[in-house]
Amino acid sequence: MIIEAALMLLPVIVAVIYREPHWLHFILTAVGLAILGSLLYLIKPKNTLLHARDGFLIVGLAWLVLSAAGAVPFVISGSIPNYLNALMETVSGFTTTGVTILDDIEALSHSMLFWRSFTHWVGGMGILVFMLSITPIAGGGSALYLMKAESPGPITEKVSPKISSTAKWLYVIYFAITGAEVIALCIAKLSLFNSFLISFATMGTGGFSYLNTSLMDMTWAQQTIATVFMLLAGLNFSLYFLIATGKGISAIKDEEFRWYAAIYVIATVVITVNVYMTGKFETLAEAIHHVAFGVASVITTTGFVSCDMDLWPWFSKGLLLLIMFIGACAGSTAGGLKVSRFAIMIKSCRRYLRKMMHPRSVSVLRFNKKELPKDVHHTVMFYIIALVLLTCISMIVVTLDPKSDFTTAFSAVSTTINNNGVAFGGAVGSMSGFAWYSKIIFIIDMLIGRLEIFPIIILFATLVSPFRWISKKIKRRAD
Amino acid sequence: MIIEAALMLLPVIVAVIYREPHWLHFILTAVGLAILGSLLYLIKPKNTLLHARDGFLIVGLAWLVLSAAGAVPFVISGSIPNYLNALMETVSGFTTTGVTILDDIEALSHSMLFWRSFTHWVGGMGILVFMLSITPIAGGGSALYLMKAESPGPITEKVSPKISSTAKWLYVIYFAITGAEVIALCIAKLSLFNSFLISFATMGTGGFSYLNTSLMDMTWAQQTIATVFMLLAGLNFSLYFLIATGKGISAIKDEEFRWYAAIYVIATVVITVNVYMTGKFETLAEAIHHVAFGVASVITTTGFVSCDMDLWPWFSKGLLLLIMFIGACAGSTAGGLKVSRFAIMIKSCRRYLRKMMHPRSVSVLRFNKKELPKDVHHTVMFYIIALVLLTCISMIVVTLDPKSDFTTAFSAVSTTINNNGVAFGGAVGSMSGFAWYSKIIFIIDMLIGRLEIFPIIILFATLVSPFRWISKKIKRRAD
Repeated sequence: MIIEAALMLLPVIVAVIYREPHWLHFILTAVGLAILGSLLYLIKPKNTLLHARDGFLIVGLAWLVLSAAGAVPFVISGSIPNYLNALMETVSGFTTTGVTILDDIEALSHSMLFWRSFTHWVGGMGILVFMLSITPIAGGGSALYLMKAESPGPITEKVSPKISSTAKWLYVIYFAITGAEVIALCIAKLSLFNSFLISFATMGTGGFSYLNTSLMDMTWAQQTIATVFMLLAGLNFSLYFLIATGKGISAIKDEEFRWYAAIYVIATVVITVNVYMTGKFETLAEAIHHVAFGVASVITTTGFVSCDMDLWPWFSKGLLLLIMFIGACAGSTAGGLKVSRFAIMIKSCRRYLRKMMHPRSVSVLRFNKKELPKDVHHTVMFYIIALVLLTCISMIVVTLDPKSDFTTAFSAVSTTINNNGVAFGGAVGSMSGFAWYSKIIFIIDMLIGRLEIFPIIILFATLVSPFRWISKKIKRRAD
Repeated sequence: MIIEAALMLLPVIVAVIYREPHWLHFILTAVGLAILGSLLYLIKPKNTLLHARDGFLIVGLAWLVLSAAGAVPFVISGSIPNYLNALMETVSGFTTTGVTILDDIEALSHSMLFWRSFTHWVGGMGILVFMLSITPIAGGGSALYLMKAESPGPITEKVSPKISSTAKWLYVIYFAITGAEVIALCIAKLSLFNSFLISFATMGTGGFSYLNTSLMDMTWAQQTIATVFMLLAGLNFSLYFLIATGKGISAIKDEEFRWYAAIYVIATVVITVNVYMTGKFETLAEAIHHVAFGVASVITTTGFVSCDMDLWPWFSKGLLLLIMFIGACAGSTAGGLKVSRFAIMIKSCRRYLRKMMHPRSVSVLRFNKKELPKDVHHTVMFYIIALVLLTCISMIVVTLDPKSDFTTAFSAVSTTINNNGVAFGGAVGSMSGFAWYSKIIFIIDMLIGRLEIFPIIILFATLVSPFRWISKKIKRRAD
């Protein structure tokens, strides 16, 4: 909370530069947060031992509390008067989803736009990893639990032995690439302020824009820069570490990287052919440009839009929805299943089939030439099934909404649970028209997607558990 | 093939009774089948040992060949001139799916209608189990492989020790319940011929009707009889065996039966409330009647329709689509995942979550109070993921069809891969408007669903393997 208060000083500076009255609202929220945080800091817990369950709970609670606080400036400044809407916008920011409930984004002040996009950047690498890198209070074991709950992807290969130094390294890379994108966009004649906003959204694979039309009205050069940096943000950040330490070749040999590249190229080619054949673009170059942008935006779960993809044929839109679930590499800021999970799933399905045909054959599941421990691919299977189940349950609730038919519900749920931001059908554009219960589902789905399911489920299970505990007591007494 | 030839004599009798010229077409096909079958019978294989892969292959091939032959009378009689359409109709019949490509069912002659509905009944318990019960050539081990590939559901609890006698028992039950339904429908003033057609479709959980409007124009009494017998057909047939041997109490205690009953009752109540609240029916009784019918039709994957369910709100339709994937009990004639697989999935997800929270806890997965072997729930997970993957791939292909948007593609693929027959959106009614490649996908999906995925995949893998073998040879020579 104290760190979030500190982060809110940045939009204060922006408000001062642009002479906007909103500095007050950020200051007020920051002061409130700082006071609350300090008070909590005074409470010293007797037991500092963290179990797996506690780790999950802390992460889940932290994201909820920080989002709830992050929404306050929007409400007290009157930029987003409805608190539920403001909360959804902030969760969409911190979880780097990029769906918006704003009907008119351009009406926001500079400082509000800055805070909105900045949440993407902060959320991108995870508020908690951020905190760990600056304040490594929690020692080895406990911190590892936090990492397990927070870092996206099934394989948390340790980049460097100590977590806090790993986090610092990752942030150096994160800063560097963000800086590179800001410079590139400035060269492509975007204003410095707007370059920052777009870079925040790209690096966090978020997708908030400062225009109502996302990136549609930008130049080709600016869109191409976004395409490249979206793809870079979708890479596993430990690859950059490998490159920085001169092991570039092993980065290229990385199996997840190859799957990622293959999926991107194949999807782009297939969709380009489909879109071009159905005459949606006049020239082939135009088709390639927009499809390359769109596929990058969907696979990295960024959610920028360079043209109206809802007009594309359903074959392309269906493929994009599938890719939405795959997502980009583990260890990136992207959402979705992650490429490595998808690859492990395909591989273990193939192995399973082979075993059905030749029951006595012995085969080992390898990823990156290393044998996978048995529980990894079972974990992956459970993860996928949990994701499918949660998508179904969310969809059923959202179809209660008079605004949504089947396609809209599916599109809206997939875009939130995968932290994507691109939507089709009735979910295109602002999501302000959905009912309150749909919005709550979207908020939960975004958090579920971002924290890879378990922390949020455990959070809800814990919230329910007092009732359970009471009912158990009553039952026991009855016996 | 010889048995199918014999089965075709029944529609010949129907044709003679109704003085229709189609007796000739059935006789011709039957003679052709008998000659082909006899010729193949003369070929004595040197090696009679069957491996798992061979078992899967035989089952897959058998369904394909028998469907291909079953479609011939439709084509040579001119009832369904297009062979692909006729094949799709026959596959839909044998796999007890119930989707139709006929725009005007009532134009068919009595003998054709009889054959069409009869395929449901024959397919219902599996042509091959049928064959095994009459001609138990293959001894113990090999026959078990066939059973494993054929019988629906994850648990093949042996009803009685010998397969052929099990099959005979199952058929006695099957005949008895079919007879009971025919009598009940006759009492409810349906003609004897039509009672047979509806009973065939109910017992096979197929869904072909003799009217263009399915069961919409029938009386409430007739619809209620169908509801009851659909639910009975969705039960695990070994429960009837238990009841017949006086162990009725253990049948009621069966865990799958309880899940099945619970899902049916809860879904019916929830959908009734939703449908009644949105004013789709005038009286509550009407709503209960039609929802009870509709949910029974969907969960047992029969596919009868008593009213236009496409007019129901999307919440209800979404729930029905979900139930479509669950399906009825293992060891019934129904399609879908099967209730026991669904229950095992939910249970193992819960166990997995508990393990995440308490890593050191030891818990065992039980079903029907028996500990499940570890590979059972992994098999279930693989099955579900394979089903989801195949649904996605099929959908992507079907969206290429100009006729189908996202909802239509999803609805059509779910209804075929789950052997259901109920559809929403553009897939309602006749499927003749779909493109040829969509129809091929539907045929493959119906077979995949009916034979529980693996036989058909192995069949296709084997069809591809000669090319693979050649490419390997070339590669080796190049080295």
